Amino acid sequence: MPVTSAMAHSVQTDKCLNITTVEAKDIRWPTSLGAHGSDAMHTDPDYSCVYVTINTAEGLYGNGLTFTLGRGTDIVLLAVKSMKGLVEKRTTASIYGDFAKFWRELTSESQLRWIGPEKGVTHLAAAAIINALWDLWGKIRGLPVWRLLSEMEPEELVSTIDFRYITDAITPEEAIRILTDSKINRQARINEIIHKGYPAYTTQVGWLGYSDVQIQTLCRKYLEAGFTAFKIKVGQNLDNDIKRCKLVREEIGWNNKLMVDANQIWDVNTAIEWMKHLKDYKLLWVEEPTSPDDVLGHKKISEALREYQIGVATGEMCCNRVLFKQFMQAKALQFCQIDSARIGGVNEILSVYLMAKKFNIKVCPHAGGVGLCEMVQHLQMWDYTSVSCTMDERMIEFVDQQHEQFVNPALINAAACYEAPNSSGYSTELKQEAIVMFEYPNGSEWQRMFADGTFKKQDY
Amino acid sequence: MPVTSAMAHSVQTDKCLNITTVEAKDIRWPTSLGAHGSDAMHTDPDYSCVYVTINTAEGLYGNGLTFTLGRGTDIVLLAVKSMKGLVEKRTTASIYGDFAKFWRELTSESQLRWIGPEKGVTHLAAAAIINALWDLWGKIRGLPVWRLLSEMEPEELVSTIDFRYITDAITPEEAIRILTDSKINRQARINEIIHKGYPAYTTQVGWLGYSDVQIQTLCRKYLEAGFTAFKIKVGQNLDNDIKRCKLVREEIGWNNKLMVDANQIWDVNTAIEWMKHLKDYKLLWVEEPTSPDDVLGHKKISEALREYQIGVATGEMCCNRVLFKQFMQAKALQFCQIDSARIGGVNEILSVYLMAKKFNIKVCPHAGGVGLCEMVQHLQMWDYTSVSCTMDERMIEFVDQQHEQFVNPALINAAACYEAPNSSGYSTELKQEAIVMFEYPNGSEWQRMFADGTFKKQDY
Repeated sequence: MPVTSAMAHSVQTDKCLNITTVEAKDIRWPTSLGAHGSDAMHTDPDYSCVYVTINTAEGLYGNGLTFTLGRGTDIVLLAVKSMKGLVEKRTTASIYGDFAKFWRELTSESQLRWIGPEKGVTHLAAAAIINALWDLWGKIRGLPVWRLLSEMEPEELVSTIDFRYITDAITPEEAIRILTDSKINRQARINEIIHKGYPAYTTQVGWLGYSDVQIQTLCRKYLEAGFTAFKIKVGQNLDNDIKRCKLVREEIGWNNKLMVDANQIWDVNTAIEWMKHLKDYKLLWVEEPTSPDDVLGHKKISEALREYQIGVATGEMCCNRVLFKQFMQAKALQFCQIDSARIGGVNEILSVYLMAKKFNIKVCPHAGGVGLCEMVQHLQMWDYTSVSCTMDERMIEFVDQQHEQFVNPALINAAACYEAPNSSGYSTELKQEAIVMFEYPNGSEWQRMFADGTFKKQDY
Repeated sequence: MPVTSAMAHSVQTDKCLNITTVEAKDIRWPTSLGAHGSDAMHTDPDYSCVYVTINTAEGLYGNGLTFTLGRGTDIVLLAVKSMKGLVEKRTTASIYGDFAKFWRELTSESQLRWIGPEKGVTHLAAAAIINALWDLWGKIRGLPVWRLLSEMEPEELVSTIDFRYITDAITPEEAIRILTDSKINRQARINEIIHKGYPAYTTQVGWLGYSDVQIQTLCRKYLEAGFTAFKIKVGQNLDNDIKRCKLVREEIGWNNKLMVDANQIWDVNTAIEWMKHLKDYKLLWVEEPTSPDDVLGHKKISEALREYQIGVATGEMCCNRVLFKQFMQAKALQFCQIDSARIGGVNEILSVYLMAKKFNIKVCPHAGGVGLCEMVQHLQMWDYTSVSCTMDERMIEFVDQQHEQFVNPALINAAACYEAPNSSGYSTELKQEAIVMFEYPNGSEWQRMFADGTFKKQDY
């Protein structure tokens, strides 16, 4: 693709499409059959998603999704269905022309907001719809979303963000200034992303269900694949955690990065005490030491672990920009782990990146699951071209699962970097056979597993 | 009912019942046809609930509910259905014998927690189930829930609370100490509640949709009914708000209490500026000045309004004990407005009352809607008998709507106090005809309104 800033269009030049229908599907993979994805709080995840397709009369369509763990996917699906009337029969211009206004209509529907607001099921549903709209927008402009974002004028990009509740932390004017200042050398950074990609780290060496031998084998595999940063799960048993940290350090040495993830298992004081026992393993961060809602708790943990140079990371289950704002205002985290399928989709995530820039917090996105790698690579690449403009201690999580289900899967190059997506849109389209096989409960694989007794059909 | 502490039983003496089925219904009233309940963010509420009945083989049953605003009730209903397998086929002893453990199983189901956790749709669903279990427990012991709570031994009461994520603010030992210390004169306070009830305030004089004449008429009506505290909605137009405050003060005088409610309409700095314009109206509190998730924002507002002696109140949409904990730790609110149908039902609310006692915060519960008055009166009466042991600047919101739908409605006496409930349970049983008429979408009233075009049936 030729690299030229002439690819930046204004809203007016976009072709205006007529949205016809919003389809939503419950897709689940039986990942609980292995121990893949298991952690201290989520012991048997079936990686799943609510998959949204926004169709237009002109034939172009957008796909978006939100990630789930199996049970409950039907609940988010129903929430998507209850919102689709806000999207159907609209023109794309009426949405992208004032995307922040549309985003607020979707997330603040006067009756639905009571069962949120802006959190949990309804916000996950909004995220799936919003992500589909960005996929569609990318296709309309013929750009992958990271390029769409990187080539937008600052004013247009900022016009997509609802600043409600965050103006005490960042104003639209400040956001525009950040994006305007980063125009210097942006083209060079875009070229760098295209040629080198964006660094990844792996979580795949230390799920809680893995044996020592599995951990060693996986460390060697990912070292050979060029990875220099590794994350393991902790929190069920302190002696085991010490043993596992030691084991991984023996395999990866001391120049590579090591992080640990507690998945919210501890209370605040327990987190501090537990992590003191792991201080000798040169840990870059402890992830989700306690409740994802506890700003002040994370602040206390951050302060207590500062002397051991262990940072605090959280964000994959942070429910919205208001929580992220406070985490940053309170210096309660050092690594911000936005999740591309949570909070209210791309528009809200953009505001988090901009706040992170202002508060000088490193964004290292959560990924894995279903489609998270595919989506978040776009956002993090935009962060490099247009927001933080640095990769210093920044990297994207990578888990090698479910990618084969996507038409344009996330790809890792020989230097363990995400390759820059070059297809139009948000890399969110599932292969047709994935849907045929894994739609719940009628997909062919589920029918087979119900029949042979591998799974019992959800029944209520 | 004779007043004797011999009514306090231990778990062991409870009759053990066998839970058979958990039924859940979507019940909606067409309140949007008036302007009742309208505020700055919720312009057209149809007061609704998910109504849960827990049946036992022995015939006793418990009812519980969570309040909703119309659309979305079906989503919460589906969440209840997805959880009911955790309750059905259990004995009551297996639940009440370690209620905290059961509560955690319900709120931390390993796949469902991803779409929360402990917030939004899934937590509302958990609340409806938990509230039904307390109704059933009250019936088993033959006590209204406020008496059940007041007569429990401290250890048993504290055993119902999951302290995960709050031990940095309050420990089980501290909670037991609070409840043990309050045994002195508790019987006298129980008698006082029985004879005098608990003070109410009214929100019914100033919904945003009301005209000046309506406001004046209602002020006079509620003054005559003995009310001494009044709350009005603000936030859509500053000049109107000034006018309405003035109007209400002219009607109620300066010795009665006046509060204002912004329903989350403002950003942090706007809240401060707006409220400065209302400083002359001797306002006890401003309620929900900004996002219910913004602890640090409320702290800033509290500090800015202190010089005007305007307190900050919030809590009706506070999603769980972790947020409440931070609001208290940060001194971000002066009035804690717990909602009996939100957070994870009674068990979690008990922990909020205990933290409020420790942090010296006044609890003035949110009520109105459907069943909120009925339920929360029990909790606030227990607060008086067993926790704060004072009514100083404490009162329960009262809105005179939907009470007629209940078998044991909340009652206000001639001194504008809630009368102590004396029926066993949690006052949560709907009349059969309410269900027949208002179950959505098949109730007779909905069918009539669909047929005559008053409402369009939800269709997706």
